[in-house]
This record gives sequence, C-alpha cells and structure tokens, in this order.
Amino acid sequence: MNIAIMGFGVVGSGVAEVFTKNHEMIAEKSLHAPFELKYILDIRDFPDSPYADNMIKDFNLILNDETVGIVVETMGGLHPAYDFVSALLKAGKSVVTSNKELVAEKGCELLALAKENGVNFLFEASVGGGVPIIRPITQCLAANDISEVAGILNGTTNFILTKMIRENMELTDALKLAQKLGYAEKDPTADIDGIDASRKICILASLCFGKHVYPKSVHTEGIRGITLRDVAYAGNADMVIKLLGVAKKTGNQVVISVAPCLIDKHSQLASVSDVFNAILVRGDAIGDVVFYGRGAGKLPTASAVVADVIDSAKHTERRRIFGWTDSEEGYVADYASVPGRFYVRGTMTDGSGAGSVTAGMKSVKVLFAENAPADEAAFLVNAPSEKWLRKTLQTVGIADPVVMRVTDY
Amino acid sequence: MNIAIMGFGVVGSGVAEVFTKNHEMIAEKSLHAPFELKYILDIRDFPDSPYADNMIKDFNLILNDETVGIVVETMGGLHPAYDFVSALLKAGKSVVTSNKELVAEKGCELLALAKENGVNFLFEASVGGGVPIIRPITQCLAANDISEVAGILNGTTNFILTKMIRENMELTDALKLAQKLGYAEKDPTADIDGIDASRKICILASLCFGKHVYPKSVHTEGIRGITLRDVAYAGNADMVIKLLGVAKKTGNQVVISVAPCLIDKHSQLASVSDVFNAILVRGDAIGDVVFYGRGAGKLPTASAVVADVIDSAKHTERRRIFGWTDSEEGYVADYASVPGRFYVRGTMTDGSGAGSVTAGMKSVKVLFAENAPADEAAFLVNAPSEKWLRKTLQTVGIADPVVMRVTDY
Repeated sequence: MNIAIMGFGVVGSGVAEVFTKNHEMIAEKSLHAPFELKYILDIRDFPDSPYADNMIKDFNLILNDETVGIVVETMGGLHPAYDFVSALLKAGKSVVTSNKELVAEKGCELLALAKENGVNFLFEASVGGGVPIIRPITQCLAANDISEVAGILNGTTNFILTKMIRENMELTDALKLAQKLGYAEKDPTADIDGIDASRKICILASLCFGKHVYPKSVHTEGIRGITLRDVAYAGNADMVIKLLGVAKKTGNQVVISVAPCLIDKHSQLASVSDVFNAILVRGDAIGDVVFYGRGAGKLPTASAVVADVIDSAKHTERRRIFGWTDSEEGYVADYASVPGRFYVRGTMTDGSGAGSVTAGMKSVKVLFAENAPADEAAFLVNAPSEKWLRKTLQTVGIADPVVMRVTDY
Repeated sequence: MNIAIMGFGVVGSGVAEVFTKNHEMIAEKSLHAPFELKYILDIRDFPDSPYADNMIKDFNLILNDETVGIVVETMGGLHPAYDFVSALLKAGKSVVTSNKELVAEKGCELLALAKENGVNFLFEASVGGGVPIIRPITQCLAANDISEVAGILNGTTNFILTKMIRENMELTDALKLAQKLGYAEKDPTADIDGIDASRKICILASLCFGKHVYPKSVHTEGIRGITLRDVAYAGNADMVIKLLGVAKKTGNQVVISVAPCLIDKHSQLASVSDVFNAILVRGDAIGDVVFYGRGAGKLPTASAVVADVIDSAKHTERRRIFGWTDSEEGYVADYASVPGRFYVRGTMTDGSGAGSVTAGMKSVKVLFAENAPADEAAFLVNAPSEKWLRKTLQTVGIADPVVMRVTDY
C-alpha cells in the first residue's frame, strides 16, 4: 500500500522524516509489506528536498491513484483541507490529520463520512501534539463514564506563563522571547487569545461526551490581561495561573471554556512548565488521569501522525470505531451562570479597604502582594456565577476587575 | 458472548461492579450484544453478594463452556493463575489479567500461546492500575524508537516518601499510617523492598524493547534505608527522593533497576505524590511523555480490566497484535558497572571533613542538612560506576555509605 502526504510544512516534513528513519520498525509493527510514501502534495517547490521526486501539485493524482490507501493531511486551515479530506473519504481512502481546526469544525461530519465509506478518519495529532490522548480516551478509559476533561493545551501560552511565574518576566517580554525561540508566531493571536486551545478542548469534549461542540460556542479568554501582580497574588494563595481548557458534563449540558485559572501549586497541572502540555481526564472508575508531554513540534506531532497511519494500516478490513453525533441547540451551558470560586483583582474606587468591599460575600480570602497599590483589592471568593460576581463588584465599587476561576485540579 | 471472572478479591469484585454499573455504555462501545457475566470463580463463599448466583468453585465449568469467550484473571500469584490461564488460551479463550507477577514471569510464553491459538492476552491493569500505559506504548508511540522507560510504579512507597518529604514524618511512622489507611499490607515486604515495582518495570521493559526481562535479573532496592536526613540533604540540592523503576536501552543490552533515586524538584515525576503513579516514556520522536494516575485501587484497576475486555470483544476476529520474544543470556547489563551521578551519605571514620574525603572525585557538590552529625559526609559526585564509587568510599574512610543515583528526569 502507498501513502500520500498533503502539506510539506513543519509537521508534514516531520512525518516524511519519521517514516524514513523508522521505516523498518514501522513496517514490522503494521504487519504489512512496508508501505511506501508515494506523493507529497504542496503548492511550493522543494527542489533540494530528499523527497523532491515525490512532490506533486495536483491533488487529483492522489485522489485517483488506487494504490494510495492512506492520506496524511498536514496542511492546516479549513480550506482546501476540508474539501480534499471529504473527497478522499468518499473515494474510500483513510485519512490521518493533525489539523485541529478541521476536526473542531468538521469532525462530526467527517467521522460520519468515514463510517459511510468504511474507512478511517484519525486525528491523534490534533490534540496534545505527540501526547497520546485521543486513543487512550476512546480505548483505555472505555469502561469509564467521563465527567470532566481539562488541560494545558497550548504550549506558547504555557511558556509565557512559566516565565512570568518562575522568572518574574513581564508578559510582553516573555512573548518576545517565545517568538525569538520559535514557540510563537509573528502574529500570536491564535495562541495568546486562546483560539488554538479552544479548538482542542472542542475535540476533547466531543470525544469524551459524544456530542460535537463547535469552537464558536466555547467561552474563550486569552492571557493578555494577566499581570505579574496576578501571578504574585496567586502565589500568596499557594496557587499558580495556567491557561486551561475545561469541559464538564452537567446533566444534559456541557460547560466548556478556555480561560486563565488558578490551580493549587501541588496539582499535577501546576508543574507542567514551558511548552509542555498536559491533559487531565476525570472518570467515575479511574479518578483523575493525566497525560503529559510535548504538545507541539515537528517530531512529536509527526510521531502521533505516523502512529495513526500504522493503526489505520492494521485496520484496513475493520475500521477503527469511534465518533460522536452532532449536538442540539442549548447543549452548551451559559458559562457566565456557572457557580464557583473566583479570583478577583481590581481598584477600589471609593478608597475603602478590601475587607469592606467583600462584606457579605462568601468564603472570602484576601490576598497580598508586595508593592501593590493601596487602592487595589485582590481576593478569592465563592459566587453563584461570574455574572453575579461582576455585578456585585460594580455595586461595591471595584473598577476594571480581573476575574479568574479557581479550579479543583 | 459470556465472560467469567477468576478471583473475587478487590479487583475482581471491582470488575463485576464496573460491568454492572456501566453495562449499557460498555455494550454500546463494544458493538456487540451486551456480553453477560456468567461465572465468578473463587474458593471462598459469598452468600450475600449480588453475584451469589454466578459463584462457582470448579474451574472446568469455565474451561469447558463454549459460550465463554473472555476470561478475567484477578486471582494474583503465579499458581494456579498460570495453569488456568494457559489452559484457557489453549482452549481458544481470550484472557484479560491484572496479575503483574504472572505477566512479569510468564508474559512472553503466554503471549506466544495466545498468538498460536488466535486469541488475545491483555494486561493493561498489570502496570499503573487504571493508568493507560500498555496500549499507549504499543499503539500511540508505535512510530517511536523508545530508549527509556521509568516511573513511580508503587503507590505505597510513594505515599511513605511523600509523608517523609512534605511532613517530615519518619519512615516507620509513615508505613504505619499507610497500613492504617489500607495502602500497605500487614507484611509490606513486596512494596517496601521494591518487589512489586520490579515486576512492573519488567513488563514495561519487555514491552518497550521487545525482549522479556525476568524479575530475578532486575537490580532491586527498596526504601528501608532512607532517612529523614537523606530527604533533607536531597532538598538542599533542590531534589526529592523517589523510588523509581528504570529501564534503558544501551546498544544490545538493557540497564534495569528499581531503586530510590534523586530527581530534580521541578521534574514532572517530583510532583507525583501520595499513592499516585507516573510512568515516563522517552522516544526518539516524541521526547518525554508522562502518564499519571491512580496506580492501584479497586475501581481504577477494574476500569483498566474492563477496557481490555471491551477491546478484546471488538477484536474477536482479529487479535490484538503485540508481544515480545524471550531474551538471551547477557541481555541485562550489570547495574553496578553503569556510570552516572550519585548521592552519597556516610560517616567519616577518621574525622576528616567532607572536602578531604572527596578530593580527587569528579564534579563534587557537598550537601548540608540541619543537625547533621559532625562526622557525617553527604555529597553528589560523578563516578564511572557504583562499584568504583563504593570501593573508593571505603578507601577514603566513609563507613556504611548510603548511595543513590541522581537521575535526569
């Protein structure tokens, strides 16, 4: 059997590299005559690449080649990836992708298409890079009723927060360093504003709870508003700030968000530093399980793609079975209405102390930080909802409050 | 299809419970008519159990019943578990086990037997309790050349070390507490002396490197010799002491051990506390991946067993493919000859200072602890082997040295 790669960027070239390097071992594991890499589709020219002979620019060569059984999609973006993948599945070819946008937006539809055509649509690399997560959830935790999935899903923002927490570096400086080291794009919006993480939590929620969640319905906040003083206040409460994607089942609904949160410094997620990712799954039988590793990068992601290719090759007669259905209106709960414990930092407009502004609030813990302005209040508080909390903060005269949830991870 | 459980102890009764509780969901996931629990084999009587009607004492009822396709072995111990499992595999029944002793001692043979008879022999629950690890290694990391696997594999000893590190509790007191809480047996030998962990690292090494390693060839040390002062000295070097199972490939050999080690306090393994387990896998493409969760306990372990049953049920026509071959003489390297960085604590017999005894040793870092006796030396040092180091320590007059390796996790 032959395979093809669409998109010869960082991940796609990594896939070719892992294939070449571990060719023999892979052939052994997939129990087939070694499958060969036949085509690499890219609009760019790579005359000096060792794969120059495999390079093509016409998608139809792949689509119409009966010897190609598995196609790797590492182009990224929604179009033309979606159009190509749909056509391939309809033509009876299995597809392996690392494209989180594609899975988050079209996963439900593409899984159904794969099922109809008796082929595989696999996407281990779309969440957590090389960290095994999709397959463990679908197989190893199959006996569990999963109630919650949460994680540090974006390496760039975790790198920035780690620098803020451990080295007291300002956010803007940490971002510049991340860009210098190649961890962040020139335009870091997708990372910094939580968009990348929101696609990943959509995929995880869809998989864990069986119904598709679309990125547009996820409450998404990034890390731009976080200051070194927030980090210090959190530290004063023995906590650290992490950008978490969280999805919880509550009855027939799901509460889903990407937002900076406070977590206990002894938590397994608190020690996840730099560009590493970690995903926590909470099941009724297993309790908490955490998967940890490099969430991005050429070879880690490529290794997940190749594992999917091997798995697909082993299941040519019988397809890998998992999927989810579409979700109905109202499946995603209103995030601002969910009760919880919150961190608040803001300016007291009438000059009163934090003690007086929090009078009447529940389970308040006032926080301290060195060199904090006298008119700044920071505290933890229980509230019936963020909506209620923000309204109350306005009433008691706290301007421009920063509000973050405190988690129990 | 029917299933049977052999051994109605903690794990076996948990398996029955998870089956009953999540029956519908499990049936859906395994894509079969719901399989029924037909027999539970145990020599004891359970007249008040909800499963009293399923209880049997004659193994042959299971062996000779053609409607039983999958048998769960949760008896523990080598005999009669080994005899029963062999007979079942030969009779064409798939077996799922949580019995680490069985897999560590007989895994290679039983996997071959399963292959011959076209059935499955699965053992996800034998390592890390409910933490998915066997399947991620065989499937998700399939594209990787794995060079190293290491982990905190025993919850009891990790609980004790956590109490020593975080609460300054003496080892004997922590052990008593663990016994009181049900985390340790009355006779804690298998846990405390590293025997349980050595079985698990055997299974992991066999799986990762493809050749069977037997427990008797593993260098195994427990935690009995560790004192609160060792914990303090390690802390002084920003490290913590953890009981680690470690297996590394070095050319055609494997270096394999269970021993207390010093690890950096920022390491992902350092924050694994209480009865939790964590397993780190180092692959050429993925880098380090860590799997974390409850390594023991009724429901976590049962959930792993049931996941294997579901997987086996999905693969009745095509068996799950993985295994390893037997190992040749000399496959396991001599542990005492491996170079590394070491922690040393001992008494200086001639009254000289630590500085003078370490003269001539490489990259020495002298350590300090409050209230340490004046004639005690503690330091980190590089050495060509533990053998060399112990001999040298004798020469320079350090009596009864405690020696532990410093890891790079």
